[in-house]
Amino acid sequence: MNLLLLDPGELDGRRAVVRGPRLVHAREVLRACAGETLRVGVLGGAVGEATIVAVDDHALVLDCTLDRAPPPAVPVSLVLALPRPPVLRRALEHLAALGVKRVALIHTARTEKSYWSSHALAPAAITAALHAGLAQGRDTVVPDVTLHPRFRPFVEDVLPGWCEGQLFVAHPASVRWPAQPCPAVLPAPATVAVGPEGGFVDAELERLAAAGAMRVGLGPRPLRVETAVTVLIGRALAGAEGSVAGGSALGA
Amino acid sequence: MNLLLLDPGELDGRRAVVRGPRLVHAREVLRACAGETLRVGVLGGAVGEATIVAVDDHALVLDCTLDRAPPPAVPVSLVLALPRPPVLRRALEHLAALGVKRVALIHTARTEKSYWSSHALAPAAITAALHAGLAQGRDTVVPDVTLHPRFRPFVEDVLPGWCEGQLFVAHPASVRWPAQPCPAVLPAPATVAVGPEGGFVDAELERLAAAGAMRVGLGPRPLRVETAVTVLIGRALAGAEGSVAGGSALGA
Repeated sequence: MNLLLLDPGELDGRRAVVRGPRLVHAREVLRACAGETLRVGVLGGAVGEATIVAVDDHALVLDCTLDRAPPPAVPVSLVLALPRPPVLRRALEHLAALGVKRVALIHTARTEKSYWSSHALAPAAITAALHAGLAQGRDTVVPDVTLHPRFRPFVEDVLPGWCEGQLFVAHPASVRWPAQPCPAVLPAPATVAVGPEGGFVDAELERLAAAGAMRVGLGPRPLRVETAVTVLIGRALAGAEGSVAGGSALGA
Repeated sequence: MNLLLLDPGELDGRRAVVRGPRLVHAREVLRACAGETLRVGVLGGAVGEATIVAVDDHALVLDCTLDRAPPPAVPVSLVLALPRPPVLRRALEHLAALGVKRVALIHTARTEKSYWSSHALAPAAITAALHAGLAQGRDTVVPDVTLHPRFRPFVEDVLPGWCEGQLFVAHPASVRWPAQPCPAVLPAPATVAVGPEGGFVDAELERLAAAGAMRVGLGPRPLRVETAVTVLIGRALAGAEGSVAGGSALGA
């Protein structure tokens, strides 16, 4: 845990009282003792440090200095075919850690219908995965995750208003569906759609193209959803960070 | 499984006989039946398709057409502080799926010594993770993974001959250790070093700098080892794929 996330309701001025799993983690993993400092952040708000005033079986009492803004969001929105539950949990954690703030989980022809009734989609499970990612990335701003169990109404009715910037669809190039290599730096903002294992079907690619999507490939290898998502976010991050293409500006 | 990996010893002309876990997977997960086709590849060699001649409790018999080269390697070598065992397994699988061919696992000051006696480092465990990644990425060329349980001898004696191209060290920027943003496209070839959770210590950064390493950051968020590795490989892939920086060439 790189950051202890506090609920605004746990704060009273500079003082915070933490119970439950974060108390257990602080005692058993961090072996927190009075007088030590922890990095803390308040959900949706500032980050900073806290001195441990007291810690016992019942509570962790902190004196907090919350004096900095959380890191800036990465300017990419994700449209993600609902993956199987363990992949969903890891993908949500990854994207929250990397600074993505808008995610639409959608149904596609190759998405297992049973995934929509998984416990991984319970609000508490989604929140737990997102909080774990925020704690990893020292961020406090919870991504907005929405569920869209019907493909066509999402693409035709929701996507036009939801999409920010150019819409890219990550899809392996084929004879029928040529794709350019994905840009090394995604423009900001951008929206990226990632299909299920096995990819979008033709009718879905047609509807996404009609919605203005540009098909881009990530090379000849079929990538796992988590891998493709992380590579794509890394390329949005490159834009946000002002990374340069090639080695020239490095004197390499 | 996107590719069934065959050992050269299982091939006799076009015919292959497969037993063990891949037989179980073919029967129970793929529900393979005679007459169907599977994607296959021979370890270290060509890829293609196979027609199932027969399948029963004892063997999967294939008629193979191995007529294509595996996908090209990604021109990046990785120096990776040995992570905890489950992260190692996932990292090896990821990097094999993405096409990395050279990995040095090293000890660092913040690496738990106990990791070096983990079962995850047994040759069979490493091979299993790498094969899983190759099957995912439809590749056949097993990455070369070497173990270096002492940091200084590795950096001073091994690295100079092992490193290909510019050496980058992914490390969060700080006052003492300023870092430029990591290039969006890594030059080819390149070597990238990723530290443990918590990062390299000062003495290690000094030794890596003396070995010619350039420090690069991946933004203000501390990333998991797996995440950092995937973002970095994605940027090497951008070079190999000829991706363009920015949206200009896309007409975006």
